[in-house]
Amino acid sequence: MATIKDIANKLGIAVSTVSKGLNGASDISDEMRQLVLDTAVEMGYASKKMRTSKTRKVCIFIENMDYENVEQFGYEIIVGFKLSAARRHWDVSVVPTNLNMQTQEKYDTYMLKNGYSGAFLLGFELHDDWVKQLGKTTVPTVLLDNYIERNTHVGYVGTDSEEGIDLAVDHLVSLGHTKIALLNGSKNSMVSAQRHQAFVNSMRKHGLEPEEKLMAYGYYVPDCAKDHVPGFLENGATAIMCASDLIASGAITEVVKHGLKVPDDVSVVGFDDLPIASQFSPSITTIRQDRIDLGKSAFLLLDGLIHDVTTSKLLLRAKFIQRDSTGPVKNRD
Amino acid sequence: MATIKDIANKLGIAVSTVSKGLNGASDISDEMRQLVLDTAVEMGYASKKMRTSKTRKVCIFIENMDYENVEQFGYEIIVGFKLSAARRHWDVSVVPTNLNMQTQEKYDTYMLKNGYSGAFLLGFELHDDWVKQLGKTTVPTVLLDNYIERNTHVGYVGTDSEEGIDLAVDHLVSLGHTKIALLNGSKNSMVSAQRHQAFVNSMRKHGLEPEEKLMAYGYYVPDCAKDHVPGFLENGATAIMCASDLIASGAITEVVKHGLKVPDDVSVVGFDDLPIASQFSPSITTIRQDRIDLGKSAFLLLDGLIHDVTTSKLLLRAKFIQRDSTGPVKNRD
Repeated sequence: MATIKDIANKLGIAVSTVSKGLNGASDISDEMRQLVLDTAVEMGYASKKMRTSKTRKVCIFIENMDYENVEQFGYEIIVGFKLSAARRHWDVSVVPTNLNMQTQEKYDTYMLKNGYSGAFLLGFELHDDWVKQLGKTTVPTVLLDNYIERNTHVGYVGTDSEEGIDLAVDHLVSLGHTKIALLNGSKNSMVSAQRHQAFVNSMRKHGLEPEEKLMAYGYYVPDCAKDHVPGFLENGATAIMCASDLIASGAITEVVKHGLKVPDDVSVVGFDDLPIASQFSPSITTIRQDRIDLGKSAFLLLDGLIHDVTTSKLLLRAKFIQRDSTGPVKNRD
Repeated sequence: MATIKDIANKLGIAVSTVSKGLNGASDISDEMRQLVLDTAVEMGYASKKMRTSKTRKVCIFIENMDYENVEQFGYEIIVGFKLSAARRHWDVSVVPTNLNMQTQEKYDTYMLKNGYSGAFLLGFELHDDWVKQLGKTTVPTVLLDNYIERNTHVGYVGTDSEEGIDLAVDHLVSLGHTKIALLNGSKNSMVSAQRHQAFVNSMRKHGLEPEEKLMAYGYYVPDCAKDHVPGFLENGATAIMCASDLIASGAITEVVKHGLKVPDDVSVVGFDDLPIASQFSPSITTIRQDRIDLGKSAFLLLDGLIHDVTTSKLLLRAKFIQRDSTGPVKNRD
């Protein structure tokens, strides 16, 4: 692995200048600092420094996800992560990111510059610059709901959607539903593809053929329901499985707008078990993701990667929670 | 959850008798003790006692797997598990099992009687009595290479075979091989099914159609090679992927017996990276499973299950290790 001397030799500058660049000293130019950092990353110096660093600092990067209060998806994940980190005496910074930040600086360079030993990435999408760079990063990194092939420095944590969706389909089929629709999350995410496949598999396992007209991708906001629910109803759906409780709340609103009742005419299932699921009227039958445990597991996985335990995937069980938004099928014709 | 009083009421006996049965006192009959234990398990008392137990005891059950010395597959897994357990101050017992032991006593009863808070099961097969009981156990349990559906008390730890096999197929295809055979492990194991599927997927990804005549199930011993390798060679295989290094060593011996050379005429790939892989002549190209990390991860997962973190699956990265048993394809016709 590269030493400070190797970097100095490569750039033809003094070892002391390299050291200043790496340690954030103020008496060198920004351009020189950037050059030193980029070269260090390129030569594989990053991971060495991170592993030997005495300041135990990791960070959570967060994008496209609300986390400021307990009603929101990211909140408990961060709490869980911080709980586990605190027990092992690690400092955690929460850093909101955006595409702009990712364009300005490479992921590895950012990590080296800021002295983080590893990171947990929440809410990133497949086309994000940093996600694309993760195939080659040497920085211990854990992603929620995203999997990077063939890089032993990167791990994936999530909930077993396959089992969760199968439990929900089981429930709906036992209530007599056969025309079941799927209102999925964003198309640019691995977890949406997984859930789509899980839904198709589970329907077939139950002897039902999933219909193209009853499956759609949306976004993780209630509003997306109005683009798809009318079509589902037109095509005879008696039940709608949604990729989040927020989407489910939107779907219920939309069903009601069409003069139909939930669950008397149409059953709706959510995903996540956010506080809104139990508070909504009717309360929402859902597939629970334990977000505290997701956060705790993400830290354990990251701690492992920092110490060379090359975990690839960690999946938590999904739990099915029955509430009032699902009921026996009623033929609407 | 059931209390000692509930058990006493159900059986119509004194609380003190139940207590004696649960705590192994000698002044009650064996039949009564068994009745108390079975009833306690049936009423869900087990998990409560286990969770509140002050003696921190877990065990490793081992079957169909060698683990006595460092050359063998189970050895480092147990070392890794014990390392992680010791750090958290848990006692670990290693208990060899067999079908007879499993027929004599139910899994939950055995665990309750012996005061274990959880267990790690190594080398079990799908048809084992205890594995069949795991769908309903309330005892925190981790399985190597076996997955139990829909029970939040049970977790699965293993290596990502899919990625490992894909890396090996990549390597063979880059050497010009197209007639690639798969000599799998035992048919009664989930991991064999996974590897079969991974091989089929990877071949197709590389534009090759896997041939039925070039795929077979064997056992995890070198000897199984002689039942299948002759057929593979007859059907034109230029490379053989094996489900373990031991099988690979047998395959190499068999290829040589047919007057062919490894890797000049036929390439052979192993799995696991046991010591034999680097010691054999030629040294064996293989897919490494980090067994120390498997053991460590199994303990972490079990510790989580004992504390209600319902992890479902934890997979480690497989690492491809190139040695001397693989080389460029040579047309044997």
